[in-house]
Amino acid sequence: MKFSEINLLDELKRPELADLHNIFHQRAVAKGAIAFHPDADENLVFIIASGRVRIYLGFEDKEFTLGVLEAGDLYSTHAGCFAQALEESSLLVTDVQSVKRCMSEVPLFNRTMVRVLGQILNNSFSIIGSLAFQDIYSRLTAFLYKEALRTGVQTDEGTELRLAVTTEQLSQHMGATRQTVSTLLNNLVREGIMQKRGRSAWLIPDMEALRQQAQQ
Amino acid sequence: MKFSEINLLDELKRPELADLHNIFHQRAVAKGAIAFHPDADENLVFIIASGRVRIYLGFEDKEFTLGVLEAGDLYSTHAGCFAQALEESSLLVTDVQSVKRCMSEVPLFNRTMVRVLGQILNNSFSIIGSLAFQDIYSRLTAFLYKEALRTGVQTDEGTELRLAVTTEQLSQHMGATRQTVSTLLNNLVREGIMQKRGRSAWLIPDMEALRQQAQQ
Repeated sequence: MKFSEINLLDELKRPELADLHNIFHQRAVAKGAIAFHPDADENLVFIIASGRVRIYLGFEDKEFTLGVLEAGDLYSTHAGCFAQALEESSLLVTDVQSVKRCMSEVPLFNRTMVRVLGQILNNSFSIIGSLAFQDIYSRLTAFLYKEALRTGVQTDEGTELRLAVTTEQLSQHMGATRQTVSTLLNNLVREGIMQKRGRSAWLIPDMEALRQQAQQ
Repeated sequence: MKFSEINLLDELKRPELADLHNIFHQRAVAKGAIAFHPDADENLVFIIASGRVRIYLGFEDKEFTLGVLEAGDLYSTHAGCFAQALEESSLLVTDVQSVKRCMSEVPLFNRTMVRVLGQILNNSFSIIGSLAFQDIYSRLTAFLYKEALRTGVQTDEGTELRLAVTTEQLSQHMGATRQTVSTLLNNLVREGIMQKRGRSAWLIPDMEALRQQAQQ
């Protein structure tokens, strides 16, 4: 999940925006530390200056990763999510009021926000799909894992799996419609657990990640 | 779920934006009709000119409402959602390329997008919470429904329920943490099924809607 294309950081460095840059203060976050909790009172917006920050929903012992933000991405603390530094990271932080100024002066601000929100929304739809079809999802990933163990070919990039069945046949095997199985396969791709390599051909970069999905 | 505050429609009517207004074409949608399917090839953006449009995820026989858009709200067709007119509606439709022009000329465009995406994201988090705790959620709503039937007071606005237990006690009763029960109660409020009226006091506008939650 890569969000960065145009970089908000470069934009903010423009000399004419020096005033604007000053409303942000820098905050260092150690690897593994939670930068923001969903129940914090502060209503802040942060830009990733360096490092990577995982955005996730956490309920009791369950966690759902919504995305990994990289340099130039921004997000807010009042969205009900946890923000965890995956590596030593540096954040530019400011309050929501100050951001409203940025919004008019730096159009890239809103565009970056739309892009990040769109990505996170997309991932949340994947999570909803997986949860709504937990049964079928577990059976599908268990089937793919077993097939990859049995017939997969090891390569430098991971395990290559060539399915001997069509999506139609796979759906019948799972007792689900073709559309549901397609949706769940797309979810696996979006989550980076599988990569499509052609008709019925897949790459599984990390077999352990697939196995964990099957056990949920 | 009301999205509208500042109105993009008014903005687009400004005389200096006449050119911009012309890139949109109007599309009428009958009450109950699906305006857009998630698997459509078209990559469009639409603004609600009049009426109300429900945005939802649909999988087999399951539907999850993400929000109801009103006049001045905008959304895109490539987000994997269904868009259904809840009443006779009129949409202003254009392709994504044309919208990129709007984005720089009409800052309100992106701001509206951020607001709508934020709301839909918020609702998707509620859905994830409810699905992840389906068990507790069903038991909680079943408990609230029974209590409201037993002790609720009928008013013009709905059924008033005064709980004799604290959230702490309610959590123990459900075998969940206080935080999970709070989250699920917040979900019920966000979905409009309950309204908070004070400490342990709630209004249930529609008992049937609460009953349906309990049965999921």
